[in-house]
Amino acid sequence: MPLNNKYLNMELIDGKKVSETIKQQIAAEVEQIKARGEKVPHLAAILVGNDGGSVTYVNNKVKACEQCGFVSTLKTFDENISEETLLKTVEEFNNNDDIDGFIVQLPLPKHIDSQKVIESINPNKDVDGFHPMNVGKMMIGLPCFKSATPAGILELLKFYNIETAGKHCVIIGRSNIVGKPMSVLLSQKGWDCTVTLCHSRTKNLEQVCASADILIAALGTPGFVKADMVKEGAVVIDVGTTRVPAPEIPRGWRLKGDVLFDEVAPKCSYITPVPGGVGPMTICSLMINTLQAAKGKKA
Amino acid sequence: MPLNNKYLNMELIDGKKVSETIKQQIAAEVEQIKARGEKVPHLAAILVGNDGGSVTYVNNKVKACEQCGFVSTLKTFDENISEETLLKTVEEFNNNDDIDGFIVQLPLPKHIDSQKVIESINPNKDVDGFHPMNVGKMMIGLPCFKSATPAGILELLKFYNIETAGKHCVIIGRSNIVGKPMSVLLSQKGWDCTVTLCHSRTKNLEQVCASADILIAALGTPGFVKADMVKEGAVVIDVGTTRVPAPEIPRGWRLKGDVLFDEVAPKCSYITPVPGGVGPMTICSLMINTLQAAKGKKA
Repeated sequence: MPLNNKYLNMELIDGKKVSETIKQQIAAEVEQIKARGEKVPHLAAILVGNDGGSVTYVNNKVKACEQCGFVSTLKTFDENISEETLLKTVEEFNNNDDIDGFIVQLPLPKHIDSQKVIESINPNKDVDGFHPMNVGKMMIGLPCFKSATPAGILELLKFYNIETAGKHCVIIGRSNIVGKPMSVLLSQKGWDCTVTLCHSRTKNLEQVCASADILIAALGTPGFVKADMVKEGAVVIDVGTTRVPAPEIPRGWRLKGDVLFDEVAPKCSYITPVPGGVGPMTICSLMINTLQAAKGKKA
Repeated sequence: MPLNNKYLNMELIDGKKVSETIKQQIAAEVEQIKARGEKVPHLAAILVGNDGGSVTYVNNKVKACEQCGFVSTLKTFDENISEETLLKTVEEFNNNDDIDGFIVQLPLPKHIDSQKVIESINPNKDVDGFHPMNVGKMMIGLPCFKSATPAGILELLKFYNIETAGKHCVIIGRSNIVGKPMSVLLSQKGWDCTVTLCHSRTKNLEQVCASADILIAALGTPGFVKADMVKEGAVVIDVGTTRVPAPEIPRGWRLKGDVLFDEVAPKCSYITPVPGGVGPMTICSLMINTLQAAKGKKA
């Protein structure tokens, strides 16, 4: 890794590598399932409309299923689909015993009540972990499907044997899919961080961030975290994935994280790059949840 | 209030007064409901066994129902009741349209799976807010029944117009019924605290506490918070209610909070006493939730 030569004390957290490793482990387990003549895990996805990002995400999920040896089903709808038809499909998937878990790719068109759709999913098949039953169980510390990004970050910390107990973890951003669940998970027994959850109303944010042993940036503002906000030796996890214009490359955009990588990395003990850090772990978590769903357990 | 004379800059948070005020407001609303000839709110409680604390709590809840003008039903069972019989009663209460909300007083005897019982309650009648559906909705920021103690603390902050936005709130204790939900609620929009959740594995706890604008002690260790852990002018909320032996009074015990009141109070801008601070608010929250359940809305 050339970066490790440049920043001697820093280790790059390679989400792509971790994700590939976990998918290979899953694939090996699926081979054994097949060898025993048991049912192969089956993930289904519902995609409404043809938003570029959503299409890419869903295709990547289908591809990950192939890598893991899962069966996958993709059901697509025109963006004008009625809420009723969508709910009917959810109900079909709930009742289809062959489907172990499924997702409804978000965002949905404005005329559809997303929360209603999420709550119509059988919590035991809700491998995205967005159903309030799963969120509530996560909060209480019960077995559940954890939402993909926070669960993926936990996998990264585990893979790199990063000590969390008693560490001060500062999270920037209080979203329902990253900041809030991350704060709950890292506070729980086994992880045992002292977590401070920051947001747009936080005062002295720079100072709070600079006190973090583990800093998780999940606010979606490219380059927000600068070197003076990071303590020497900190672990920095960058959840930001904003598309910024990049006319110099054919697709015209590139992903930018919330952390100014070049100036922050030299101060870190560990840091995730963007892309290739947290991003690949999201789909990996979905695969873990699907395997657990197939085994009748929650991750 | 003699205390205000002694500690000139400190205001005592009078939970008893706030609770009585809110119950009077509820009673007035129930009078209007009756005047319109509509159904009066009905809270039911299930009590298993005769644990002294539980009997007292349930009786206080029944008394609060009377004060609010609610109908109340108390169903008691011998501690040897089977889980099946208890679940059957929960089902009856779920299906009884006259009952707007009900609680199963905890703790339950060891041979009964408490979590299973909680999850068998219809979330729309779960006025204790312990069902994962309500916990999950609280986490996501959706309308729900909030658990009593955190909701009661929010009522106290509201009643005394205590500014929370941008304040650093430190919570000691990560329990499912106080610390965790409190951290989520105070982080949310509208309250906007920067919350740090501390627990037994937290390092430099004294220092972290001393940085708090709002300090919430919910660990259950009498007298844990001392003056040097509190910033001058802080708001201190004491959730501790440990029974300590007190042979000098007839009942033989008294309640002690987590805060060493006498030495901490002079440094505070606001502080809750024990008893008479957070305690009375818990039942008050239950009354608020029951009224909301009767109105078909969640608090």
